[in-house]
Amino acid sequence: MDQQGPSPALFFDTIGAYERTEALRTAIELDLFTHVAQGHRTAAELASACQAAPRGVRILADYLTVIGFLRKRDEIYELTPDSETFLNRRSPAYLGGTVDFLLTPELRACFHNLTAAVRRGGTAVSAEGTVSYDNPIWVAFARAMAPLMQTPARLLADLVGGDPRQPLRVLDVAAGHGLFGITLAQRYPQARVTALDWPNVLAVAADNARRADLADRYAVVAGSAFEVAWGGPYDVVLLTNFLHHFDLPRCEQVAAKAYAALAPGGRALTLDFIPEPDRVTPPSAATFALTMLATTAHGDAYTFAEYQRVFAKAGFARSEFHALPPTMQQAVVSHKS
Amino acid sequence: MDQQGPSPALFFDTIGAYERTEALRTAIELDLFTHVAQGHRTAAELASACQAAPRGVRILADYLTVIGFLRKRDEIYELTPDSETFLNRRSPAYLGGTVDFLLTPELRACFHNLTAAVRRGGTAVSAEGTVSYDNPIWVAFARAMAPLMQTPARLLADLVGGDPRQPLRVLDVAAGHGLFGITLAQRYPQARVTALDWPNVLAVAADNARRADLADRYAVVAGSAFEVAWGGPYDVVLLTNFLHHFDLPRCEQVAAKAYAALAPGGRALTLDFIPEPDRVTPPSAATFALTMLATTAHGDAYTFAEYQRVFAKAGFARSEFHALPPTMQQAVVSHKS
Repeated sequence: MDQQGPSPALFFDTIGAYERTEALRTAIELDLFTHVAQGHRTAAELASACQAAPRGVRILADYLTVIGFLRKRDEIYELTPDSETFLNRRSPAYLGGTVDFLLTPELRACFHNLTAAVRRGGTAVSAEGTVSYDNPIWVAFARAMAPLMQTPARLLADLVGGDPRQPLRVLDVAAGHGLFGITLAQRYPQARVTALDWPNVLAVAADNARRADLADRYAVVAGSAFEVAWGGPYDVVLLTNFLHHFDLPRCEQVAAKAYAALAPGGRALTLDFIPEPDRVTPPSAATFALTMLATTAHGDAYTFAEYQRVFAKAGFARSEFHALPPTMQQAVVSHKS
Repeated sequence: MDQQGPSPALFFDTIGAYERTEALRTAIELDLFTHVAQGHRTAAELASACQAAPRGVRILADYLTVIGFLRKRDEIYELTPDSETFLNRRSPAYLGGTVDFLLTPELRACFHNLTAAVRRGGTAVSAEGTVSYDNPIWVAFARAMAPLMQTPARLLADLVGGDPRQPLRVLDVAAGHGLFGITLAQRYPQARVTALDWPNVLAVAADNARRADLADRYAVVAGSAFEVAWGGPYDVVLLTNFLHHFDLPRCEQVAAKAYAALAPGGRALTLDFIPEPDRVTPPSAATFALTMLATTAHGDAYTFAEYQRVFAKAGFARSEFHALPPTMQQAVVSHKS
């Protein structure tokens, strides 16, 4: 491209960006990366393995090469290290299943109606968007997104501290797949975890806890976090990927409920997309605000200063910020005393 | 991000790429860039100008900043040079109107059905996809895409050569907006242009020729390029963004018809997306093949070697390749003798 003057390259790249989403989804649906990993390396071999047309596979694989998911040498396609790790179904870190949540028709419809959402200042698909009670999308979330949460869950567990041989009472609010509480229970053999979520979602978390052999240290509370009693006291309250769905007054209600449910010395652990005060860095935290605009009535990507105020209002003595590289998320640890 | 090991960053960036498309489309629909150009610089000012919610505009503008279409300084948004040139509606190079073609529901549906297209080896939306007779999408194309074609049309006219004061007989096959023929007619004051296209599209080309004050040097032939007589003889036959819709045997039919319609010394000018033999470079030419897979039964992005064979089979003496920087396209000039 001409580097001298203005270029329409970014415009076209962005207007056509949805094609990349579709190409990657198609490759996952055809299990193309797994077939490459298993030694099918030419368009003809892959077409046979994927039960697709050689011409279709050749064009798709070339496209995936251009956008960075494959390498091509003569007529041979190879996986990149990232594709080997995250897109080969036999890999323990396989992420392909996350498309069952990330590309659900409900979420796509929210973005399809983005102009109306910007006009309204909140989701245009319904009054509450994805936050509506018992929305089945959260079952899809719980089933699809656990693999993605392994690294954040491990890093969040690092923030709990204390003696891992001591008892630890944990409440996992809006537990979803339950992975954050489950990871804590694995790290702290004396920990007892209570998972709170809507009943349809809670079934997924309870199932995951059973599979992790934690049934005897795992309890559940079914209902909306805003309506049911949280029980307690707890040493740790987990607020993972939860507060971003709500406006700040609702976040304050949650923080107050966390404060009341915590024992002295207890702390609330918030995992979220937390941009810098400029709200445009880091990119993955900053861009998440658009997802909240498109999919919820009042949600946002809040800054650390905003979370500090939320927890201070609820009575917490202090909050600390933690970046969690290499994940796309950040954490706030808020101490009751 | 952790640079040591594999990263899911490209996976998430690509799965979420469709959000960028929607954000840019929304900004164009709200005319946000034009309002910034006119001095509305804060979220509140822009919200008022766009008749949208301040919260919605703030989140959208932050997102556009992250993906490179705006700059943000404190709470002030500014256009980038590219956005000033291509996204301000008052700019002569404004490209926002191209979304009326690039993001039509018909084209999106083709990509939504990409998995089926890969299995089948051609578009899954209908037997012929977008190439069906009198498909109204080509009226949208002709109306929306002319601004984008100004630079390619100028560069293609450079390839005609000869004395600009001499008469030049030009056939513009599948003329669309007509801009390629019109640009030639402006460059060669003695040129006479015949535009060939389906009747509904031809109305747009004829209208553009009238506005360019070329009606007395502009003729039209209505119908399918495969079915109607092309007339002639011509000195130049333009095949712009046309051959990529068809398989090679159909391209050979077109080349043969061009050969027959050309006078001795005449040449066919093909403008298209022409990748290198590896079919994965340059990116904009290589990725176009996926659009043909998704939207047509047999189309492709052909290499220069393939076009050489097509024109040689039809009798052309020789073909030359021309890259056309800074555009995303390439050209082939094929000489009858």
